Amino acid sequence: MLDELGVDYIEGGWPYSNPKDLDFFKAMREYPLAKAKLAAFGSTRRKGVRPDRDENLNAIVKADVPAAVIFGKSWTLHVEKVLEATWEENLAMIAESVEYLKSHGMEVIYDAEHFFQGYQEDPERALASIEAAWRAGARVVVLADTNGGTPPHEVYRITAEVKRRFPAMPLGAHMHNDIGCAVANTLMAVAAGARHVQGTINGVGERTGNADLTAVLPTLELKMGFKVLGGSPPRVKFAKLREVSRFVYEALGMSPNPYQPYFGDYAFAHKGGVHAAAVMKVPRAYEHIDPELVGNRRVFVVSEMAGAASVVLKAAEELGISLDKRQEAVRAALEEIKALERQGYSFDSAPASAMLILIRHMGLYQERFRLVEWRVVTGPTNTSYAVVKVWVSGEVKLEAGEGVGPVHAVDVALRRALVSAFPELTEVRLRDYKVVLPTAVRSTESVVRVTVEFTDGGRIWRTVGVSSNVVEASIKALVDGYDFALQQRQLQNRKA
Amino acid sequence: MLDELGVDYIEGGWPYSNPKDLDFFKAMREYPLAKAKLAAFGSTRRKGVRPDRDENLNAIVKADVPAAVIFGKSWTLHVEKVLEATWEENLAMIAESVEYLKSHGMEVIYDAEHFFQGYQEDPERALASIEAAWRAGARVVVLADTNGGTPPHEVYRITAEVKRRFPAMPLGAHMHNDIGCAVANTLMAVAAGARHVQGTINGVGERTGNADLTAVLPTLELKMGFKVLGGSPPRVKFAKLREVSRFVYEALGMSPNPYQPYFGDYAFAHKGGVHAAAVMKVPRAYEHIDPELVGNRRVFVVSEMAGAASVVLKAAEELGISLDKRQEAVRAALEEIKALERQGYSFDSAPASAMLILIRHMGLYQERFRLVEWRVVTGPTNTSYAVVKVWVSGEVKLEAGEGVGPVHAVDVALRRALVSAFPELTEVRLRDYKVVLPTAVRSTESVVRVTVEFTDGGRIWRTVGVSSNVVEASIKALVDGYDFALQQRQLQNRKA
Repeated sequence: MLDELGVDYIEGGWPYSNPKDLDFFKAMREYPLAKAKLAAFGSTRRKGVRPDRDENLNAIVKADVPAAVIFGKSWTLHVEKVLEATWEENLAMIAESVEYLKSHGMEVIYDAEHFFQGYQEDPERALASIEAAWRAGARVVVLADTNGGTPPHEVYRITAEVKRRFPAMPLGAHMHNDIGCAVANTLMAVAAGARHVQGTINGVGERTGNADLTAVLPTLELKMGFKVLGGSPPRVKFAKLREVSRFVYEALGMSPNPYQPYFGDYAFAHKGGVHAAAVMKVPRAYEHIDPELVGNRRVFVVSEMAGAASVVLKAAEELGISLDKRQEAVRAALEEIKALERQGYSFDSAPASAMLILIRHMGLYQERFRLVEWRVVTGPTNTSYAVVKVWVSGEVKLEAGEGVGPVHAVDVALRRALVSAFPELTEVRLRDYKVVLPTAVRSTESVVRVTVEFTDGGRIWRTVGVSSNVVEASIKALVDGYDFALQQRQLQNRKA
Repeated sequence: MLDELGVDYIEGGWPYSNPKDLDFFKAMREYPLAKAKLAAFGSTRRKGVRPDRDENLNAIVKADVPAAVIFGKSWTLHVEKVLEATWEENLAMIAESVEYLKSHGMEVIYDAEHFFQGYQEDPERALASIEAAWRAGARVVVLADTNGGTPPHEVYRITAEVKRRFPAMPLGAHMHNDIGCAVANTLMAVAAGARHVQGTINGVGERTGNADLTAVLPTLELKMGFKVLGGSPPRVKFAKLREVSRFVYEALGMSPNPYQPYFGDYAFAHKGGVHAAAVMKVPRAYEHIDPELVGNRRVFVVSEMAGAASVVLKAAEELGISLDKRQEAVRAALEEIKALERQGYSFDSAPASAMLILIRHMGLYQERFRLVEWRVVTGPTNTSYAVVKVWVSGEVKLEAGEGVGPVHAVDVALRRALVSAFPELTEVRLRDYKVVLPTAVRSTESVVRVTVEFTDGGRIWRTVGVSSNVVEASIKALVDGYDFALQQRQLQNRKA
């Protein structure tokens, strides 16, 4: 995916430190890349060891990939206290390591670890360390803020000074987020002359994270006039970047960050009635870019602050209902939403549940089924049994379900009751499930809030359930999810 | 809390737009503040309306607080397309609104909405708009990046140009996070001459959020040489800031962000054995500040990448066990941890569960109780019944529990079985409970991961449970939580 995205290098791991990373490089021989070069990571040689005898450098060579990323010391504190080496030895370690990897046909990217702190304490030595790497043949010298504590104006000043001293040296940036500036520091280094940026998808990384490429790349192209990720149009490459971002969250078992710049669900969410109306009129006045440029979209958020206009616009857009915002029904729905929010509900991330409330108040809801009763007997995995009593189009059905857990057992029983009447529900499945404690009371008696994301293969919708019983909260969200699928179809048929 | 923290202004709401905000200002008359001034928010007067007839300005006056924050237009696009006014009318709206509020004895903070975009398109008009506010008596002119899309080098350039044009004008910064630069843009504005910053605790705000004061304030003081939040020492005021940050997360029903700069649980977390050992030796070489300066602490993270050294150090620190990292037991514990991580466990946020595994392998675990069997019958809230069979110090007890939900019912039964033998568990209670789907498979059959945070009033510990049954996963985490409390006490007694 990174190769298709158009990145130049993929740093695949540190073969010396982790044997699994060496396995990764081996496995990758079966997957030829179109554009991206694989790079193996490691340090410069050890003190007092010849490069050809250094296990770390030889592990990099053994990875058998086109590029190497090696880090070396620019900060006297590290040379003296961590390496316990002389400054001359440090320079030799840098130069010989670069030369050795080059002699094996590898492209070498040199990471100047703790460069900014090193420069602040002793600029001449810091400059000498990167000059040694460059003269030895490093393709690019990456200025790394390894501790992540350098403020952006200092990053700019120091990078610009390096550029003045060595105008021909190709510079890169490697930033950490310890003061919340990894993205900005990367941009400031580029503004000062760097032309190679390192980062991670979604900023995933140790401590507070690395520079988030999903924020860095669109800003470089859309705000600063650079071309990134090859020549395809922004809306193509950034839609792909969004896809990679979602994949990484999924693979790590993390929920996507709804507040993420450019790609988050709330990145172009507008609250407040008057404001939402103005956005419709002059989008450029309220949005820093057209959301479609990055594969995102404008949304109007349902919440206590929203006012009637946002709900009206959202309903109009999603369900094709035309509403008059002064309608009593809209006001009543908003009252109910606010009352539920006081109980721990949150509809910002579950608009489908809000929509069900709205259409009930508008008289557009047609009851297709109702869960009348349910009981579950549960114990360790695979010993959950459910009984549900469901009203389905005028008939009351009693069904049983067996499952790995109580929610699964109820789901099985519920589907048995529903699918003969509504075969379209066969396609509906969960995409995500999350539970939090929405209030400050904390015990096993606390109210929990369950949010569920559904898909039918195409559309995605999210619902919410709240209860002091986690199974009941889950079932409420589940029932809303199936109900929304049926109501949406019913409203569409009505329109057609 | 904000007043105690030492902030200068608390913007308490928009009384015209939301009547609840007016109620807030009224309620605050009962809570005199020591230092902070309350400020009411609003816009400049409407087009063609006299200030004394303007409902919005009069709502601000009616709030009866010392300060007003009003926003006005600096961008011709907004003047022409949103206000549909002439430029002269806009300047009059700004000046008359400031004068009117001043005539009611209020201090006026003027927010220049969309200033950076306005300046980029027409610098002279943008400058004229803020000059109008300043000449009319605004105490500070705040340059606002309302759409949040301005890159940091542009924020610096434009703020510096304003400062050059109006050296005596007191400038402020109001930044949004749409390109991930709200914190850095605030710092860049200060570097260019601004001396008033606006933001929110934890960066909470619409779309991608506002400038996070929990990152801005420590950087201004610890990295840029400014004094913020009054004269008390950094470790006092930033410990208070951390407390406010936690309180806001709690009040909003949000989990604290473990990756948060300065204050997150992972902000000073070190992974990797060699690295962890080096941190112990020369902290300054690997940490951008001393974590205690902001009321945080150094931690060593247990994870697949950690290597033996981290576990050893963590155990040594937390349980007072001395280990040799070459021990076979440590290796076996790490193998088990890695195997569980492949099943969906994550120990980074649940070190207590990892510790239980470690002490079992080391032979330091003394079994105090074991949950042998459990069954729950559950239905809607307040109809959950549990039966547990528990081995307690050689005796098998069968107990029943009734609860609001299945986890509560099991907890009640389990506590009945345990408290007579272990009265210290009476003090133990839940602080947080979270459920996520750790793997990419998504259905009601998916494995869930439950993380629980416990406290006994003093200490805090976190455990994890994984199962395809949400009740079972919760019970596993619960059992680990009680077990850890007992094991920790046992190890301490052993030491003493």
